[in-house]
Amino acid sequence: MQTLKELLKNDIFAARAGVELLVVEPGYARARMEVTPEHLNAGGVCQGGALFTLADLAFAAVANSRKNLTLSLNANMTFLRAVSSGFVYADAREVYPHRRVPFIEVRLSDEKGELIAMMTSSGYRKNDALPVDGLM
Amino acid sequence: MQTLKELLKNDIFAARAGVELLVVEPGYARARMEVTPEHLNAGGVCQGGALFTLADLAFAAVANSRKNLTLSLNANMTFLRAVSSGFVYADAREVYPHRRVPFIEVRLSDEKGELIAMMTSSGYRKNDALPVDGLM
Amino acid sequence: MQTLKELLKNDIFAARAGVELLVVEPGYARARMEVTPEHLNAGGVCQGGALFTLADLAFAAVANSRKNLTLSLNANMTFLRAVSSGFVYADAREVYPHRRVPFIEVRLSDEKGELIAMMTSSGYRKNDALPVDGLM
Amino acid sequence: MQTLKELLKNDIFAARAGVELLVVEPGYARARMEVTPEHLNAGGVCQGGALFTLADLAFAAVANSRKNLTLSLNANMTFLRAVSSGFVYADAREVYPHRRVPFIEVRLSDEKGELIAMMTSSGYRKNDALPVDGLM
Repeated sequence: MQTLKELLKNDIFAARAGVELLVVEPGYARARMEVTPEHLNAGGVCQGGALFTLADLAFAAVANSRKNLTLSLNANMTFLRAVSSGFVYADAREVYPHRRVPFIEVRLSDEKGELIAMMTSSGYRKNDALPVDGLM
Repeated sequence: MQTLKELLKNDIFAARAGVELLVVEPGYARARMEVTPEHLNAGGVCQGGALFTLADLAFAAVANSRKNLTLSLNANMTFLRAVSSGFVYADAREVYPHRRVPFIEVRLSDEKGELIAMMTSSGYRKNDALPVDGLM
Repeated sequence: MQTLKELLKNDIFAARAGVELLVVEPGYARARMEVTPEHLNAGGVCQGGALFTLADLAFAAVANSRKNLTLSLNANMTFLRAVSSGFVYADAREVYPHRRVPFIEVRLSDEKGELIAMMTSSGYRKNDALPVDGLM
Repeated sequence: MQTLKELLKNDIFAARAGVELLVVEPGYARARMEVTPEHLNAGGVCQGGALFTLADLAFAAVANSRKNLTLSLNANMTFLRAVSSGFVYADAREVYPHRRVPFIEVRLSDEKGELIAMMTSSGYRKNDALPVDGLM
């Protein structure tokens, strides 16, 4: 058996985008991604999809920090500041731990701690148990 | 000068994710992405961030099909069906062409035409003119 | 036993706001509300909460047009045009009929058919059967 | 000239729903509403539109605590716990004070301090100055 952190290394898309999971605890997770030229859009700033990928991995870590496999049902993301280089951090917190439809908030901030985007997301827990043994 | 379609080829993150812009007209755009093993998450289905990247490029094409540079302010995405292979298409339509905060809907469907996700997004138009001459 | 339309007359808040359910079919509902001085906010236009109440009743009619009691889990509303008098119509459609978390779109339009607001909403179906016998 | 708090008493729909503005400071506001039988829906719990009305007034107080008239552009509300009586409090905070599209979070809680719903909302500031002289 593997830990949740090990399992989430199999998120190929997030891994290729450079997302690293730093911390996962019950109800909290932190991930980061360094913004490089490969993350930029045509306007020269980090693509929304890259920020979403980072937020989604932090969401997945929190949402699955309980026992059951949990998917993203709905994600609402507001972009506050553009970023074009440096690390972006995602702090995800379970705001409401419903057994079926948990609610999670993810705050994305830059290296100076400035908020650059915020996601709120409802998950959907399946009946399947996650094949993990521990978190980190 | 280049067309909008050419400009959007400079969206490096979307290009690396395999997103292709197929059509851009005033108020409408269509893009697609083939889901490959590189797009999958730890659950073996296409990562939400990959779908978001596809939707975001279609959004950007529609939002910028008028004259001014337009960014994504808020995006609300609901995931309906998981997909793990094949082409996904994004059809983006400008629902309301506000001069400052246009509202755009993006529907993502699979090869059989089944809806797999839906995004609604408010854009924010800057005062800057886009450096483009024509759409496609 | 009563019909769903009769049951929804017990939505006291919506009834007091003047919301009338016009049509309910499997997967579709239409409601309306006449905007009067009692619906206005301090800016002299219809309060967002009044429009939300109208949209929510149309949502409830569609969401409960299947067998199980269904609540609103998440609602995302974008306000496009202000309105200060006349009828507003809400057309609600089930975009995806998931057995647990259906996805519904509600379009609000004025008497001229102009779109004034749009809501997308994920419902949450409980296991409880609805105490209704038929829709209208 | 009147204060912002006085101006917001002209929100007829919110006033009729029993919403009271308790505090308004730059970037923060608090409002409350007592849930009575008149606020209930057909399921016997507080209608989503009533909670939205409360949240919207708190949003309006914060959004207009700067100088310019600000409307709600988009509101995303997640319902966490049903409530059928007692006071509900709305605490609204400006998360990002953009000069054109500020971003505001509103947390709704019951008398015990339990979170019952959460709204995130993007405002849209007009060029018009608000006809107010002070906040409370």
